[in-house]
Amino acid sequence: METYYIRINDVDNLTTGASFLGSGGGGDPYIGGLMLKRELKSKGELEIIRRPKSNKAFVLGSAMMGAPIVMIEKIPSSSEAKKALEIYSYVMNKLIDYITPLEIGGVNSTIPLITSAKTGIPIVDGDGMGRAFPELQMTTFYFYGVSPSPMVIFDERGNTSVIQGIDGYWTEKIARIITVRFGGSAYIALYGMNMEDYLKNAVLDTLTLALEIGELLNDKKLDQVLDKLKAEILFKGKVIDVYRKVEKGFSKGYVVIEGIESYYNKTLQIDFQNEFLIARTNNEILVTVPDLIVVLDLFNQKPITTDRLKYGQKVIVIGVPANEKLRTEEALKYIGPKAFGYNIEYIPIDKRL
Amino acid sequence: METYYIRINDVDNLTTGASFLGSGGGGDPYIGGLMLKRELKSKGELEIIRRPKSNKAFVLGSAMMGAPIVMIEKIPSSSEAKKALEIYSYVMNKLIDYITPLEIGGVNSTIPLITSAKTGIPIVDGDGMGRAFPELQMTTFYFYGVSPSPMVIFDERGNTSVIQGIDGYWTEKIARIITVRFGGSAYIALYGMNMEDYLKNAVLDTLTLALEIGELLNDKKLDQVLDKLKAEILFKGKVIDVYRKVEKGFSKGYVVIEGIESYYNKTLQIDFQNEFLIARTNNEILVTVPDLIVVLDLFNQKPITTDRLKYGQKVIVIGVPANEKLRTEEALKYIGPKAFGYNIEYIPIDKRL
Repeated sequence: METYYIRINDVDNLTTGASFLGSGGGGDPYIGGLMLKRELKSKGELEIIRRPKSNKAFVLGSAMMGAPIVMIEKIPSSSEAKKALEIYSYVMNKLIDYITPLEIGGVNSTIPLITSAKTGIPIVDGDGMGRAFPELQMTTFYFYGVSPSPMVIFDERGNTSVIQGIDGYWTEKIARIITVRFGGSAYIALYGMNMEDYLKNAVLDTLTLALEIGELLNDKKLDQVLDKLKAEILFKGKVIDVYRKVEKGFSKGYVVIEGIESYYNKTLQIDFQNEFLIARTNNEILVTVPDLIVVLDLFNQKPITTDRLKYGQKVIVIGVPANEKLRTEEALKYIGPKAFGYNIEYIPIDKRL
Repeated sequence: METYYIRINDVDNLTTGASFLGSGGGGDPYIGGLMLKRELKSKGELEIIRRPKSNKAFVLGSAMMGAPIVMIEKIPSSSEAKKALEIYSYVMNKLIDYITPLEIGGVNSTIPLITSAKTGIPIVDGDGMGRAFPELQMTTFYFYGVSPSPMVIFDERGNTSVIQGIDGYWTEKIARIITVRFGGSAYIALYGMNMEDYLKNAVLDTLTLALEIGELLNDKKLDQVLDKLKAEILFKGKVIDVYRKVEKGFSKGYVVIEGIESYYNKTLQIDFQNEFLIARTNNEILVTVPDLIVVLDLFNQKPITTDRLKYGQKVIVIGVPANEKLRTEEALKYIGPKAFGYNIEYIPIDKRL
């Protein structure tokens, strides 16, 4: 059992890396980072387990649900994600041995760590997306047979529901509409499974990955990030248009970027649903989900989330190959371009560019 | 412990009486009546308990939730309400000794009887409204301290949630939006309590009342119904306008009736939210919730639900004093005119007419 520790000085690297891997979504982890720092200030360090040995151990996912723009406005409290876990444990009569992030992108990289600090339950180094995605069923757990139900959803007032959907889509639909009713954000505990299934199905070592990428970005070593992830620069330019609406609990829209330097006279459009989905010029599709599209500030190389996009920003757009577990035929049914309503075949970025 | 039995020949009386007490809402019990007849055909009779002796016995409410117009269109299956009860029993680890209707009006008079027939759990002669109301917290159970949560909500696909709201309003809000997501109707099990609380808080003997009223109406003895309930004829006329929309899971609107006979040259407007709420002429309020407004076909004296109203119907409008448990200061907070958004004081119909 390999273990390492996250300390207060690691948090900025973690949140920067998680913003990058969030592919524009998952919410700005800044506030989550502050909350995590407060926990680590009193606790000193937090244990991350890389390869738990017990196959029978019970792992549970911990996350916030909602449109990122709402999650940013309603400052989360650190005790609510813990409460969702406790309710799960009580209602399901299950001891929770490990906590896992559902997604590594954005605020949901820090929420499970805060839950871990609050409960003392150790966290596993992995997640169900290797990035961020907008819907609950969009996890490698689900693609390979683990159900998100039973799931607990909890709000800051104290309202709770336990959801048992007939499949991942229905679990998502029910949880999403409850989230909307709760005011746009909620705390969830879901995807309970044993460690054997977890190790087989999760995208592993993503907390480590976020920490490493974050450290490189904070050191302004974008080239090394690109090398490490086999990523490519797709575009450089200035944001000239942002269209965004919150609809059915999602932040949906697109951004238009006018090229500069070698991209002069070209424009790039990126559509998003919480996360960036598809990047295209007038006559060419450059990247689609599940590959990651990341928008960085041209000057400080920090990731910009879809909710922070605004007119005039100068940006670099990066394309990153998704983890192989997101690229199987099974996975693409749930997270390929067609799953988001685009009549487009997925062509891996590394085969396209 | 007083007991009586409902047999197949009683069902038409029950559904007619429940339509009357539904005050226009609760859904047309015709289909529920057919389902109940099918159960009684195989089972022979169903035991109704008037005054269970055991104070510790556990009682649970069984109902359908949703806009009546949807409940009519999606023909309910008799096994789904049973399933909601079973899930409650399993999740809460509670044996259910008795089933109670939540409301006596409309389809929810027959659903609990069907559940009783399917499960073998006897039914108590009472309910939480003594009529029908559109929202979950509008029960005498809630006015006097019993919580609707935990509640189970279940759809015909097999989706389930267990809801624990912080109060009756939040339980209603969460259940309502899930019902909308389910397509407009759902099966619910809620208001678990012991028999001591039940006997103190319920409107008692309402299944008996529905049977008696239904028998009189089916025998065309409207005068005797009016005598029995201390009710009054408010108006006779022809429906000249119906405005109706399904909004947020409710059937909302109003009907305008043009007077005939001694009401010639007058018009009556009745507003509704699933149930009739307020009846008024141009210059006078005649009846408001919680007193009952009932619209009967002028010729056959059968109740007309808000969803069956249409241009040209000739009708008699009746006003019925509500049960005293609905008229206390505590109850009026939840079911008086103000609870439905009208800036009107409640004046009991028997003090007004």
